[in-house]
Amino acid sequence: MMSVVVKWARVGGRSERVVAEVLSATLAELGRVGYAGLRIEEVAARAGVAKTTIYRRWPTKPALVEAALRSSRPPSPEPDTGSLAGDLGALAAAMTERMSSPEKRSLARVIHSELDHPEVAAIARALRREAQAPWLAAVRRAAARGELPVSVDPALVVDLVWGPLSARLRLAEEIDPGWLAALIRIVVAGARGVAAL
Amino acid sequence: MMSVVVKWARVGGRSERVVAEVLSATLAELGRVGYAGLRIEEVAARAGVAKTTIYRRWPTKPALVEAALRSSRPPSPEPDTGSLAGDLGALAAAMTERMSSPEKRSLARVIHSELDHPEVAAIARALRREAQAPWLAAVRRAAARGELPVSVDPALVVDLVWGPLSARLRLAEEIDPGWLAALIRIVVAGARGVAAL
Repeated sequence: MMSVVVKWARVGGRSERVVAEVLSATLAELGRVGYAGLRIEEVAARAGVAKTTIYRRWPTKPALVEAALRSSRPPSPEPDTGSLAGDLGALAAAMTERMSSPEKRSLARVIHSELDHPEVAAIARALRREAQAPWLAAVRRAAARGELPVSVDPALVVDLVWGPLSARLRLAEEIDPGWLAALIRIVVAGARGVAAL
Repeated sequence: MMSVVVKWARVGGRSERVVAEVLSATLAELGRVGYAGLRIEEVAARAGVAKTTIYRRWPTKPALVEAALRSSRPPSPEPDTGSLAGDLGALAAAMTERMSSPEKRSLARVIHSELDHPEVAAIARALRREAQAPWLAAVRRAAARGELPVSVDPALVVDLVWGPLSARLRLAEEIDPGWLAALIRIVVAGARGVAAL
């Protein structure tokens, strides 16, 4: 039994290392040649693994690129401060922190420069959906608490904070905390008040 | 006198043609090699003019690229419907129409993929400022009419509609008229109600 456990642990360790090397090689190739130019052969050569090792785990190029981009993101926080404004503020701060790295911004731009490619657009939408999940959860909790009317579309409330914030971060503009606080105040007041109109 | 007028008219005609050819060659080169790779020599060769002809009018590469990108935009409408929601809706519709051309989107992406270049970021900010001018004017008119409290920052109201809309257009997503109308309702209600908080 003991040797089996050790063997598994070793296999796990090696497998995790291979995954990390392949994903990191994918990001490097993506930065070098973009999505359309990316070839699995080049990723394999850079990672020092066989092509079949890559295909076994990620059968298609979009699956590999999506996994690589996902691996480059820090886990998103899931704040639960008790108020919608508090949660949105914490999520916005984490997004600002994440996008302030030039490396992250440049990866985002590689992808955004090829959005006319349907596979790239699908990857971008999938990753955005994942990144917005804790935002949606925060808005839904606010509705469940009665902080928002149930008639308000939670996805729209997310768009209203995420959109202006990402538009600024994309141009590498400073996020003024006063601007962000005023933005959130208007969105929360609007989402509360709109049911009465 | 007559011959002078005719001569001027001829010079003007030729000059306008040269401007159009140089700007169109600049856009083509931008699409081919991007901003960092763009060389005035190549633009001159493509437009069939001397380099000095270009430098006389646009002394720097950023000045030339900014002019070329500006020339590729249709003039922005300046709606004055009498209500903030009406004006924002008309401006958003025009922006959606403009960005629904794959050609325009791809130019926007060329620029956005090189935003880490300080000259590119400066051009993007200048063009966005210009594009947002009629939006700002609409919000200021609403404040002047008493439709919004004067304490609300007009630029923030613009961000709140422009941001979510451009985030969707960037991913080439359909703009649902119901989504847009609900977005504008929340922003207007929030901007009106926030002063009371």
